[in-house]
Amino acid sequence: MKIYTADLPLKSGAKIDLIDITGELFNCLSKSKVTDGVMIVYSPHTTTALIINENEPRLAGDIKIAVKDIISWEKDYAHNLIDSNAPSHIVAAFLGNTLNLPISEGKIELGTWQSVFLLELDGPRSRQVKVKIIGE
Amino acid sequence: MKIYTADLPLKSGAKIDLIDITGELFNCLSKSKVTDGVMIVYSPHTTTALIINENEPRLAGDIKIAVKDIISWEKDYAHNLIDSNAPSHIVAAFLGNTLNLPISEGKIELGTWQSVFLLELDGPRSRQVKVKIIGE
Amino acid sequence: MKIYTADLPLKSGAKIDLIDITGELFNCLSKSKVTDGVMIVYSPHTTTALIINENEPRLAGDIKIAVKDIISWEKDYAHNLIDSNAPSHIVAAFLGNTLNLPISEGKIELGTWQSVFLLELDGPRSRQVKVKIIGE
Repeated sequence: MKIYTADLPLKSGAKIDLIDITGELFNCLSKSKVTDGVMIVYSPHTTTALIINENEPRLAGDIKIAVKDIISWEKDYAHNLIDSNAPSHIVAAFLGNTLNLPISEGKIELGTWQSVFLLELDGPRSRQVKVKIIGE
Repeated sequence: MKIYTADLPLKSGAKIDLIDITGELFNCLSKSKVTDGVMIVYSPHTTTALIINENEPRLAGDIKIAVKDIISWEKDYAHNLIDSNAPSHIVAAFLGNTLNLPISEGKIELGTWQSVFLLELDGPRSRQVKVKIIGE
Repeated sequence: MKIYTADLPLKSGAKIDLIDITGELFNCLSKSKVTDGVMIVYSPHTTTALIINENEPRLAGDIKIAVKDIISWEKDYAHNLIDSNAPSHIVAAFLGNTLNLPISEGKIELGTWQSVFLLELDGPRSRQVKVKIIGE
C-alpha cells in the first residue's frame, strides 16, 4: 500500500470565492504513483467548503450568489459579537469540507464536467487544502 | 489489501428523482470479498447528489419537494442562458456527490433505517455511480 | 495495512443538539496505532448529521438556529403522518452523515479551529457514531 500526503497552498480573492483545484489534485496523483485507490481532499478551515461541479464562469457566479440562500446571512447571530462571520462558519459546516475521490487506471474518476473547488466563504485569505492518497 | 472497482448504470425517471442503490452496493461488496474496510460511493455527474436516509415512500416525496427549499429555483441564473438547469447544478454542488461507508464483518455498516440514494436533480437521464472498495 | 474499528456511544440532550466528538476520535486514533492514513466517521442514524466547525458556544447556538433555515420545518410533510419528524430526516439527508479525515504523523489533520460534531436533529436520544481507521 502506498500513502501520499500533500498540502496545497491557496489564496482566495474575495469574501465569497471559488478556487478550482482540479489541476493541483491531478499533480498530486501523478507524484503519488498511485494508480488504483482513493484520494481524500480536506479543508482544515472553518469558513470554507469543498464542492464539485462544472467550471463554467456564469455558473460560478450563480453558486456564489446561491450561497446566500442556504441560510439567512443577515440575522443577529450570537457569534457575530466575537467575530462578524457567523454565517460563513454555518454555511461551511453545512456544505462540508471533506471529499473522497475514486482513483482508477491512474486517473481521478471525475466526470467529464466535474471540477473540484475550494469555496471561500470569508475571504480574501491565504488557505490550504490537504490531500491524502491511499492505494496501489 | 484488496481494491474493488465497479460502475453502476442507472436510469432516472423524472426531473427530480430518488434511486435506491443500496442493493447494488451490497452486491458490489459481495463480489469484492472485502470484509473489513471502506466503500467509496461517487457520482460523476454535476446535476445529481448522493444522500443517505430512510426508504419510505412518503418521505421520498417530501425530500423531492424539500430540494426546492435549499435555494431559490426561480432566479435568473446566468448559467440558464447556456442551459436552463443552473439550480440543479447548484443544489448538486451543495448536497455533495461523495460518500464513504464503513465495512465490518462483511457488511456495509448502514443503520437499520438507512438506504443510499442517487438524487437526480435534472432528469430523466441515464446515469452511473462509481464504487471503490478498499480493505481486507 | 492496519484497520481499526470503533463504535462511540453518545447521548443527545435536546431536539436539536451538538455533541463534540473530537476527543473520542483522538482516543480512537491513539488505540489504532495508525500514524498515516484516513479516518472514516459515520453516523448510522437517519435524523442526525456530522459536521465540522469551531467549538464556540455562541456559534453552536447559531448553528442550532440556522438548521431551521435550510428547509421549511412547518410544511405538511407526508412522512409526518407516520412520524412527525420529516424535517429532521430531510435536513439529515441534506447535511450528510459521512466524513473522512486525513491522518498524518499520528494526528488527525484537523485545523486549529476545527472540532467534529454529531448534529442531533430529533433528540434527545441514545446515538452512536462509527469510526474506521485505515493506514499504517
